Amino acid sequence: MAQCRSRLCLVAFFLFSVMMMISSVPTAEAKLGIHFHKWEVKYAYKSPDCFKKLAITINGDSPGPTIYAAQGDRVVVTLTNTLPTENVAVHWHGIRQIGTPWSDGTEGVTQCPIMPGDSFTYEFVVDRAGTYLYHAHYGLQLSAGLYGFIIVSVPLHGVPEPFVYDKDRSIILKDWYHATTYEQSTSLSSIPFGWVGEPQSLLINGRGRFNCSLLNAPSSDHSEICEAKIPECSPYSLTVVHGETYRLRIGSLTSLSALSFQIEGHNMTVVEADGNYVEPFQTKNLYINSGETYSVLVTADQDPSRNYWITTNVVSREPSTPTGLAIFNYYPNHPHKYPPTAPTTGPLWNDTASQLAQSRAIRAHHDFVQPPPPRSDRVIVLLNTQNLIDGYNRWSLNNRSLTLPHTPYLIALKQNFTDAFDQNPPSYDIANYDISKVPDNVNATSSNAVYRISFNTTVDIILQNANTMTPGSSETHPWHMHGHDFWVLGYGSNKFDMVKDPATYNLVDPILKNTVALYPYGWTALRFRTDNPGVWIFHCHIEPHFFMGMGIVFEAGVEMVGTLPTSIMGCGETKRLINP
Amino acid sequence: MAQCRSRLCLVAFFLFSVMMMISSVPTAEAKLGIHFHKWEVKYAYKSPDCFKKLAITINGDSPGPTIYAAQGDRVVVTLTNTLPTENVAVHWHGIRQIGTPWSDGTEGVTQCPIMPGDSFTYEFVVDRAGTYLYHAHYGLQLSAGLYGFIIVSVPLHGVPEPFVYDKDRSIILKDWYHATTYEQSTSLSSIPFGWVGEPQSLLINGRGRFNCSLLNAPSSDHSEICEAKIPECSPYSLTVVHGETYRLRIGSLTSLSALSFQIEGHNMTVVEADGNYVEPFQTKNLYINSGETYSVLVTADQDPSRNYWITTNVVSREPSTPTGLAIFNYYPNHPHKYPPTAPTTGPLWNDTASQLAQSRAIRAHHDFVQPPPPRSDRVIVLLNTQNLIDGYNRWSLNNRSLTLPHTPYLIALKQNFTDAFDQNPPSYDIANYDISKVPDNVNATSSNAVYRISFNTTVDIILQNANTMTPGSSETHPWHMHGHDFWVLGYGSNKFDMVKDPATYNLVDPILKNTVALYPYGWTALRFRTDNPGVWIFHCHIEPHFFMGMGIVFEAGVEMVGTLPTSIMGCGETKRLINP
Repeated sequence: MAQCRSRLCLVAFFLFSVMMMISSVPTAEAKLGIHFHKWEVKYAYKSPDCFKKLAITINGDSPGPTIYAAQGDRVVVTLTNTLPTENVAVHWHGIRQIGTPWSDGTEGVTQCPIMPGDSFTYEFVVDRAGTYLYHAHYGLQLSAGLYGFIIVSVPLHGVPEPFVYDKDRSIILKDWYHATTYEQSTSLSSIPFGWVGEPQSLLINGRGRFNCSLLNAPSSDHSEICEAKIPECSPYSLTVVHGETYRLRIGSLTSLSALSFQIEGHNMTVVEADGNYVEPFQTKNLYINSGETYSVLVTADQDPSRNYWITTNVVSREPSTPTGLAIFNYYPNHPHKYPPTAPTTGPLWNDTASQLAQSRAIRAHHDFVQPPPPRSDRVIVLLNTQNLIDGYNRWSLNNRSLTLPHTPYLIALKQNFTDAFDQNPPSYDIANYDISKVPDNVNATSSNAVYRISFNTTVDIILQNANTMTPGSSETHPWHMHGHDFWVLGYGSNKFDMVKDPATYNLVDPILKNTVALYPYGWTALRFRTDNPGVWIFHCHIEPHFFMGMGIVFEAGVEMVGTLPTSIMGCGETKRLINP
Repeated sequence: MAQCRSRLCLVAFFLFSVMMMISSVPTAEAKLGIHFHKWEVKYAYKSPDCFKKLAITINGDSPGPTIYAAQGDRVVVTLTNTLPTENVAVHWHGIRQIGTPWSDGTEGVTQCPIMPGDSFTYEFVVDRAGTYLYHAHYGLQLSAGLYGFIIVSVPLHGVPEPFVYDKDRSIILKDWYHATTYEQSTSLSSIPFGWVGEPQSLLINGRGRFNCSLLNAPSSDHSEICEAKIPECSPYSLTVVHGETYRLRIGSLTSLSALSFQIEGHNMTVVEADGNYVEPFQTKNLYINSGETYSVLVTADQDPSRNYWITTNVVSREPSTPTGLAIFNYYPNHPHKYPPTAPTTGPLWNDTASQLAQSRAIRAHHDFVQPPPPRSDRVIVLLNTQNLIDGYNRWSLNNRSLTLPHTPYLIALKQNFTDAFDQNPPSYDIANYDISKVPDNVNATSSNAVYRISFNTTVDIILQNANTMTPGSSETHPWHMHGHDFWVLGYGSNKFDMVKDPATYNLVDPILKNTVALYPYGWTALRFRTDNPGVWIFHCHIEPHFFMGMGIVFEAGVEMVGTLPTSIMGCGETKRLINP
């Protein structure tokens, strides 16, 4: 357990401990609340950006319903898969799944996917207040539209948040593609390689605007329907009352795009990141990567006689996607009256310095600092490279590209199926690797080996970026860890120096996060405790990058995991456990 | 065992028995042959009719590779599913799976589908010479392109076929859609209902021709690529030598379309149907439904200085699909030189009388007659109706629309999972049903009940057609039975009369088939023996009709089925059998 530095933190820890004790008393559990949800995952035609296409929906909706709960509550989602031939798995992004690693929803890692016709129950405790996400964790099904929010409030007698506001509102960001996920995944795994490209539109709360006139008239056999006038793709409108302060929870579950987010003429004060309180700071442009959440405070303090633009746009990659638009609507103006101004376009896409500055500005709130252990037991350096394997484009860590084995690691490790994955630990010497250029040999190898890490130890991960296979190019990768938060110790702009760079770490008030950016040619240093028994994935949250192998799997304390539910089994080598 | 009337049949039966004895001696098995196939099922971009779209392929091909074997051989297909998120199951159409009911490949009936990353081995004996098919039996995956031929030859010392020819050639027919199977299945199961419509093209051996000029220029965001000049969609050319006689095996695995097939200027002599020898008869237009196979003899007896059109076109439904074209190429003319004539267009689509005449003309070859038992132990009348259930469009048998339960019946029945499907036997009184008009009440109900039939009994099935939900409309349905052939006892044009119509049955030389047409407003009477222990489906072979519930499941002798392989398990209630 990390230690508290402040009185408020100690109070929080005490109350949390009391609640945990209460929650173990069955009669008291009802007080903490159990939230039952019934979800049907199915296809539906959707026109979120005016272009009609199939989306994977929850009960017909994309984004899906927001899950609301209070800290300490139990969430029970019974998902019925009514897709005709496809399986599904849903990850609860930012929820650590303490004691329930089989509910992490990661196909190939913690469960067999849910087959058509089957129902599966995810059950877990949301043990911290904050802003979290859920999304499909199988194939490119996030890109197909299965995503949403988990919003965990402070319970009645819980530790108050270190900020105040009048209203709580939320905005979920998404990039949207018109090609099917099958087309995308086939192109990604073909020779010649076909990249997914830039998205057709950016969605704010599931609404965007594609310029239908870019399409020709519908073709005779295969109708492409694009209707600019339908309500489904009218901009989302956030109605505010002059003088009030809004907590705006902003989450991104883009497939690819790093975004900036801004509200015309209004400052935002960042107060929360990935469920952890931030020492407040102001910004006009909030940078947000896929898998990140932020809460910002916005006061409706501008001229209330008009509306203002809410905008989001692509950064980190040269954009070809129009700015995503919503309306910051001052009551009683009409919610869909366009602002009189042209939408702001946000910062320059390649202003990495300003993105890095925001990352560095995010520190733990001074009353909620949980300092990291002063040193680590193990350091894992992960060199991020773009490679070829047998002519296929892949992403690798230390020259190993992850191919998920389809027998979930959690089951394979718990049941000791030693042939279900590669038993050699991954290793690679990157000491002499030149990150500044395309390597002479771009070939890598596939692996599904696991990092087995001692339980209750402190691990540093150094994410090291490098040049891609294109000269002069290095990309931004948002790295997301399952089952844990990590402290963000620092960022650097070059090759990590094992001797000098650790001296620059912030060990005083680093933020805890579950998703962090690795910037072009730079490094990002993380520290975490292996205090959650299970098998977990740590991966780039750009869905096509993960699809192309950009992730590692680690195990810690799997022997402490309780009996696995049979509902997560049925695929791959787990069929060995069937005894008719 | 049905009895032989002719000497040749007795010889055949004797030789077959000897072979079966030989095949039970392990050392002799190699002589009979085992054919191993390794299949990778994956997506690939294909342009079979010049329009580029994703297809589900086997080792990159659609249609897939032809399986060649000799009667008595064993076929072993190890299928690896590398689709990203979709399961798959493959049915061996016409192969009775005697002793291997778990290899029938029918999702929901005989196996859990094969999950991505998993491999599954189908193993079965091809116990009769003839022309068979294989195709996906899950969702609309047949429509997505997973289909092919199984060609079983007479072994060296086997009973000779009752016809001679110089060369053996095969042609597989398919209708092709540009919409994805997800779009199709979503539309079929939506309110308002969206019908799949007529296909964009007809494929002969995987090649068709869509008129690319019907498309507009590629749109800017979502390219529709249609290239009229690529070799992939040039017509299939069948090269013949003047004076030679060709056995042409013709199989149809259309999603929807009944077809006629013709070779310009040439007569065809029908000699085989669904693996059974036919008393030869001549035709210029061969009618063929989805799921049927025929062998015809064609002699290249026309002017060899030119090529001739091979054509196929839609019948039974008003066609909007261009005639499918291939070239009957007289050597040494250039195989791709178009004939100088306009392609023949075949018979009128709605000339049901001529289709019925062909059906009635198909009788068992006089040397291979296996007369049916003179009477049946049970008669099941199946009224075919189009209905609404909760506002959704469905097809029903006796007012019950089949919803596959996803726990395979074979496992549920063998393991006695009584809650895996509806335990009430299906029944419905159709005595007073007026088949000539839209009923006052078009509502039906869903059911997954099973017909449990005593083993080794004789069953008659009367397929009774009716008006659809559209006034003045009744459709043609090709009915296919798994695990058995049936005798086709007769056809009628109105409501079946239980007293008079059985007197018209052909009990002398009826053909044995596995797929048979039910014509508009008519009835078709079948007889079969429940001599193959297992659980089997009997369904309309129009894939969208089956998707909409047009089928029944029956069980006979399941207690005689050996221990089920665990490889067919893992889904639904079969997870109860998992013991970690």
